[in-house]
Amino acid sequence: MDYIRDLEQAMSKDRVTTNETIIEEHSFDESHHTPSRPTVVVFPEHSEEVRKIVQIASQYEVPVIPYGAGSSLEGQVIPCDGGITVDFSLMNKILEVREQDLLVKVEPGVTRLQLNKELKKYGLFFTVDPGADATLGGMAATNASGTTSVKYGIMRDQVRDLEVVLADGSIIHTGNLAEKSSSGFHLNSFFVGSEGTLGLFTELTLKVHGIPEHKVAARAVFPSIEQAVSAVVSILHAGIPIARCELVDESSVKHVNQYSDTNYMEAPTLFLEFHGNQSGLQEDVEFTKELVKEQGCQEIIFETDSKAAHQLWESRHNLAYAFIHSYPGKKMILTDVSLPISELTGAILYAQEEMKDMDMVGAILGHVGDGNFHTILMIDKENKEEVEKADLYNEKLVKYALARGGTCTGEHGVGIGKKKYQRLEFGLAYDLMVKMKQTLDPKCILNPGKIVDRY
Amino acid sequence: MDYIRDLEQAMSKDRVTTNETIIEEHSFDESHHTPSRPTVVVFPEHSEEVRKIVQIASQYEVPVIPYGAGSSLEGQVIPCDGGITVDFSLMNKILEVREQDLLVKVEPGVTRLQLNKELKKYGLFFTVDPGADATLGGMAATNASGTTSVKYGIMRDQVRDLEVVLADGSIIHTGNLAEKSSSGFHLNSFFVGSEGTLGLFTELTLKVHGIPEHKVAARAVFPSIEQAVSAVVSILHAGIPIARCELVDESSVKHVNQYSDTNYMEAPTLFLEFHGNQSGLQEDVEFTKELVKEQGCQEIIFETDSKAAHQLWESRHNLAYAFIHSYPGKKMILTDVSLPISELTGAILYAQEEMKDMDMVGAILGHVGDGNFHTILMIDKENKEEVEKADLYNEKLVKYALARGGTCTGEHGVGIGKKKYQRLEFGLAYDLMVKMKQTLDPKCILNPGKIVDRY
Ligand SMILES: Cc1cc2nc3c(=O)[nH]c(=O)nc-3n(C[C@H](O)[C@H](O)[C@H](O)COP(=O)(O)OP(=O)(O)OC[C@H]3O[C@@H](n4cnc5c(N)ncnc54)[C@H](O)[C@@H]3O)c2cc1C
Ligand SMILES: Cc1cc2nc3c(=O)[nH]c(=O)nc-3n(C[C@H](O)[C@H](O)[C@H](O)COP(=O)(O)OP(=O)(O)OC[C@H]3O[C@@H](n4cnc5c(N)ncnc54)[C@H](O)[C@@H]3O)c2cc1C
Repeated sequence: MDYIRDLEQAMSKDRVTTNETIIEEHSFDESHHTPSRPTVVVFPEHSEEVRKIVQIASQYEVPVIPYGAGSSLEGQVIPCDGGITVDFSLMNKILEVREQDLLVKVEPGVTRLQLNKELKKYGLFFTVDPGADATLGGMAATNASGTTSVKYGIMRDQVRDLEVVLADGSIIHTGNLAEKSSSGFHLNSFFVGSEGTLGLFTELTLKVHGIPEHKVAARAVFPSIEQAVSAVVSILHAGIPIARCELVDESSVKHVNQYSDTNYMEAPTLFLEFHGNQSGLQEDVEFTKELVKEQGCQEIIFETDSKAAHQLWESRHNLAYAFIHSYPGKKMILTDVSLPISELTGAILYAQEEMKDMDMVGAILGHVGDGNFHTILMIDKENKEEVEKADLYNEKLVKYALARGGTCTGEHGVGIGKKKYQRLEFGLAYDLMVKMKQTLDPKCILNPGKIVDRY
Repeated sequence: MDYIRDLEQAMSKDRVTTNETIIEEHSFDESHHTPSRPTVVVFPEHSEEVRKIVQIASQYEVPVIPYGAGSSLEGQVIPCDGGITVDFSLMNKILEVREQDLLVKVEPGVTRLQLNKELKKYGLFFTVDPGADATLGGMAATNASGTTSVKYGIMRDQVRDLEVVLADGSIIHTGNLAEKSSSGFHLNSFFVGSEGTLGLFTELTLKVHGIPEHKVAARAVFPSIEQAVSAVVSILHAGIPIARCELVDESSVKHVNQYSDTNYMEAPTLFLEFHGNQSGLQEDVEFTKELVKEQGCQEIIFETDSKAAHQLWESRHNLAYAFIHSYPGKKMILTDVSLPISELTGAILYAQEEMKDMDMVGAILGHVGDGNFHTILMIDKENKEEVEKADLYNEKLVKYALARGGTCTGEHGVGIGKKKYQRLEFGLAYDLMVKMKQTLDPKCILNPGKIVDRY
């Protein structure tokens, strides 16, 4: 095709490919959504090449789909209408660590584990930690969050500046390096979470933090999910600056034990972590012990040696993989609503009841400190009925959350999967979003069909 | 005029006024920028009325200028081409305190002191505290920040949802009540800081915090500004979760003493505050003592009784008024750059030197924990030379900051005063901002001439 020839001329030929295997690899993400193949996959090495790719795409009016690690969960990287998938894996350099400013500048293909390995040398760490070893570009594009967001914030809170290639091939910077600014319109936050539909990120400047000198990790075991969630509410309300606060239900702990070779009590559990100075932390821990006891906590186990603490979080991060591993051939569906804290208990109970009523098997877990939880369902994609039931269940939770001031997605984003709820969630604001997308991308070439409909 | 008649029909006649005094009062803000009179001032009581006002403005293509407390510092509320000033003082109800969710819903005319008075009953407080008793609507519209932003964040971090009347009269909600969301494009942050140019806020849902049980306030006195700033850098770098960290120079302390009847040592000083649990706080305080001593701190005085601590912050909040009071008839110009922390010392030294070189008198102070500082200059507005000199000085600081990854305004916003630096600061991103403004406000009726040029 003409545009493939142009791409080959614009960048090194061996980084423009229609190789079967590579095309196939870029036709899906980690979700159950139906794969669709890109026409060509390109591997740019710098912003200028990305600009050229976008210019060619614009000229021929073909879709451009940015691709990080492909770990997204709502079909975000699936090229529904073919086109050019831009794989950022070769743009994986850590460009600058500004120690004193607690900032780091990276290319979009850098992954979170790669970044943290480098930052460790400086006594620093990057806080956002989704379960997959995602790229920073992908994480910014989905506004990812993780276990420490309750203390350090989500991806949107970490982005100080983005270099973005727009649909017309112009390259802009959305922010600056100052801690705060009231200048212009705030483009940083607007681009974060845009899932490749408004521009391609070619460089990111991100906030990092000093590795806390003192950490304490714990598991608090409860007779019921309800009590575990009530304990979270009281911890938050007491103003304890908890650093991690994760709920795992009985079934989740079972899978953890199988996959991660742990021996945790198989009951609703909170995985907790505290960061701070030594004495403050001790006081936080004591206070938390009291609060969880008041909510009926049966046992709270502190992981005192660092290996055990490491294992705790490793097992939490691998939880989704534990499920994937246990159901070979099945696909994972994760619900992802987030609600105001006062509505969380009700929502989780509703999620449990509906699961029972609909005769489904699944596990509940989540970043409950942020009001966000997931039901994991493992389904047979070929079984239409099973897929439909899972979709219906997902929809019920979304509607429950939206009716209570919540959102259809706390962290996984919209992609294809949550697009149908955007109008319901945003009402007239949805029209504004569409208008803004049209302004930025009049030909609808940037990851078309994600977040908003094609036009 | 026809549109005034229409306004009188659309809302109660006594809330539509062309009264001389009221028109005059709405022709300026707290800046030195040249006043200009609105044609009419209206006082809506609810969103529906605001919608009607905007619809009439749209029909007749006349400017609409939202007005909170008029305390802005860059000419934001000045109706440069006349039109309808929408004064929100009658929309001043606190609509809902959601204690468990740590959220509050307010009308835009509620002021920060009014809100905190109410929240106190619940053991809660709203963190953002500009020196003036600004309205929450105005604070959201300028993305205000204050003394506690170093710990709790700026206005943008507090906004969970806005009800906004758009230029076409439609009413949207920009967010939801969940702690986090990856749904849609992020409109919250985009509207915060838009200074009335993208829409009128008619309701705000904001994050609040529990009043910390333990606070310690202190004054750390240094031989030089340079050492004071170095101390800030080391406090931040040590990861001490300092709650307030304000620099006041010698001249500022003198004005404080005169105006607030205090007796503080007249030397470069950091006003500090720590929040936390009792033991953690004690450890933070001890560590800070060491760090500031290392940077040459001469004396650190802890304000142990709460009255003295209150007086400390009261005097800091009144600092700008202390200057205004000391120079009757003169107008205040405040520079407002913000930089990455590593560039802060250099910038402050540059600000001092330039002041000396240009033979000007002023004081330096600021929210240095955020990399943000101000030079206060008191000028005779009628003296053209003096005004030009102050403008030139301001420009020098802006250029210094922009060359080092900083921003022309850390908190006061763009208005008229910083509009000329937007292109320099944002480059091509500025064109995108203009396009977005045009999309949202095709007739350019919303606070025209602020942030971006009229079109
Ligand atoms: C086991 C598992 C656990 C997970 N746990 C979490 C979790 O805890 N929290 C969470 O938030 N998510 C989680 N996820 C989802 C996923 O990891 C995140 O959405 C992640 O941010 C995706 O990053 P990625 O690099 O894989 O991006 P991809 O999947 O490659 O892409 C995601 C989106 O970003 C766009 N994109 C990628 N790179 C760029 C770029 N440079 N410029 C512009 N757009 C770009 C793509 O077009 C796409 O729309 C999990 C996924 C798995 C499989
Ligand atoms: C002594 C003094 C000290 C100050 N200290 C600080 C400080 O520490 N930090 C800081 O950030 N600022 C400070 N300021 C500046 C000022 O207080 C802030 O900019 C404040 O946010 C303005 O609020 P306001 O209610 O007075 O808004 P106004 O001045 O009335 O309006 C400001 C802008 O907001 C728009 N606006 C107002 N209400 C709405 C609405 N409902 N919807 C949409 N747009 C609206 C207006 O059109 C205008 O563009 C200080 C000012 C003074 C005089």
